Amino acid sequence: MAKESPNINPEIPDNGQNMLTADACVDGILKGDRYMLSRAITIVESRAEKYRGLAIEVLDRCMPHAGDSIRVGITGVPGVGKSSFIEKLGLHVIEKGKRLAVLAIDPSSSISKGAILGDKTRMEKLSASPSAFIRPSATGSSLGGVARKTRESIILCEAAGFDVIFVETVGVGQSETAVSHMVDFFLLLVLAGAGDELQGIKRGIMELADAIVINKADGKNLEDAEKARMAYLRALHLFPPKESGWTPPVMTASALSGLHIAELWNAIEDYQKLTHENNYWDAHRKEQMRQWLHESFEDLIYQRLQDDEALNMQMKKLENEVINARISAAGAASLLFKSWIKGLHGKG
Amino acid sequence: MAKESPNINPEIPDNGQNMLTADACVDGILKGDRYMLSRAITIVESRAEKYRGLAIEVLDRCMPHAGDSIRVGITGVPGVGKSSFIEKLGLHVIEKGKRLAVLAIDPSSSISKGAILGDKTRMEKLSASPSAFIRPSATGSSLGGVARKTRESIILCEAAGFDVIFVETVGVGQSETAVSHMVDFFLLLVLAGAGDELQGIKRGIMELADAIVINKADGKNLEDAEKARMAYLRALHLFPPKESGWTPPVMTASALSGLHIAELWNAIEDYQKLTHENNYWDAHRKEQMRQWLHESFEDLIYQRLQDDEALNMQMKKLENEVINARISAAGAASLLFKSWIKGLHGKG
Repeated sequence: MAKESPNINPEIPDNGQNMLTADACVDGILKGDRYMLSRAITIVESRAEKYRGLAIEVLDRCMPHAGDSIRVGITGVPGVGKSSFIEKLGLHVIEKGKRLAVLAIDPSSSISKGAILGDKTRMEKLSASPSAFIRPSATGSSLGGVARKTRESIILCEAAGFDVIFVETVGVGQSETAVSHMVDFFLLLVLAGAGDELQGIKRGIMELADAIVINKADGKNLEDAEKARMAYLRALHLFPPKESGWTPPVMTASALSGLHIAELWNAIEDYQKLTHENNYWDAHRKEQMRQWLHESFEDLIYQRLQDDEALNMQMKKLENEVINARISAAGAASLLFKSWIKGLHGKG
Repeated sequence: MAKESPNINPEIPDNGQNMLTADACVDGILKGDRYMLSRAITIVESRAEKYRGLAIEVLDRCMPHAGDSIRVGITGVPGVGKSSFIEKLGLHVIEKGKRLAVLAIDPSSSISKGAILGDKTRMEKLSASPSAFIRPSATGSSLGGVARKTRESIILCEAAGFDVIFVETVGVGQSETAVSHMVDFFLLLVLAGAGDELQGIKRGIMELADAIVINKADGKNLEDAEKARMAYLRALHLFPPKESGWTPPVMTASALSGLHIAELWNAIEDYQKLTHENNYWDAHRKEQMRQWLHESFEDLIYQRLQDDEALNMQMKKLENEVINARISAAGAASLLFKSWIKGLHGKG
């Protein structure tokens, strides 16, 4: 049914008849079925308890088929030209015979605000390519939650055969750090112009960068871009050497003219080669996986707490007791914890 | 036994003979026994599981006797002269017939580093007064944990009859926010001099302040201090009016000469009067109590997780599974959660 009227963000059918099975999901993904991949991502992103079992089974079964990609985080403040840049770099990657998935993290957007349409429009050529899969922002109330869902989407995309993953994020401060924790290579897009340099340094983003690209280096911007390049280069010298042994290049580039797009991709491949040789790649991935487990566990606990209606009712009651000094916060917390555990155990 | 050789930070006797009872603790506190108060704070600060029951019982029983004080947070960067200022203001408060407890939050210090001795030395006159109780920093690995312990210490001090509580913190950025969440009145100490003004504004601390005091306004500093006062006054105009209806005064002061110490205390009493009248005082306290419960609950869960050895062992095992792609992080998190609950329920 749904196959006849495909849509980008398929709802999960609720009636038993069309209920997706883990088998169908995993088979579809491993065959590279983009529609099934999209549905699986929706399931993984869902906060509904009824899909958790399915989501976990699909993820568990995709895991052994995942990991064989290069994950590139791309960030930059609004206006830096991320979309056109990603499209240009993405088309170059596809020309090299790769399959590319573009995922986005944007804690400020929501699907209902039209992010999908926005993404479709702004990467027109890329989204038309059969070798590209573009998935707009996961939505969520917390950045941490959104970020964890994105990691899971990466797994699914890799299992579906995508060997280059771009994770795009808006440069608003926190999401860059979250993204840097899930990618192999972190790319910072900047513009030539006063103040930009300082901003990047202050927010600690420059320390995360494996490459800094001064975008929009075309036309009469070229000279300023080169000046900015020198400034960033000098600024980078202030940071200690990277654990990866990699020296982040600072490059000018243009999505408009295509300047240095190929060179940038070569740099990313050089990084991959270097860190494979010195074993950083593997060690880094392992540390990320470890971190991912801890965050997933914390997230699960947080979700369980939020979804527990009995607990929330008792919380309200105890708030009142604490406010009226009939019990201490520590005492109330202890009572809450005991009945939470009891309730959870009762549910099995 | 311990009474004969009192010490500032009494260890809790471990042998059954000297085991402290909640009755002895609460009776002592309500009688204003400073030694018992000090022991109770140690118990409350302890992370050991065996003292949790006792800590909670003592807190619960002290709660109805707490709350009747004015809680003043005092912050400022190192070098601003917090200790001498607190001593001067503290002595003034005591002269007015009040009983004063000074608690400190310093996430960077630890008792073993000699913080106690430091505190004793730097507030010599105040610590000699029978109307003052000075308690050095709670130690802890996380600021949040330390802050929650400080709230509990406030309760105990209030139950022991202290009607003015100073909570001191170093101006390192995060602890000010934590302190502002547990006090009625938040005092920012600054120095005259370049750069200071901006710093305060940037870190969002000025927004928290109910009064800004330019300290060390004595001798040849007087003129600069007055200039700084005007600058801060102008800067304060940039912020929206406070929910409390209070307009934060900006004052020069000197711990050395005593300049404006009395005036500052009058301002704090004015604040109390105003917010009692407009009901902000009560609403604010209630919101803080609510917040305190939520944080205590989160903290309890976090502690339980950390202390659970079986869980930590399973975590290590599952980290390995995730790293080797045999299971997804989400799948592993779900397994961990199930066995955690099971284990907790088994323990009762």
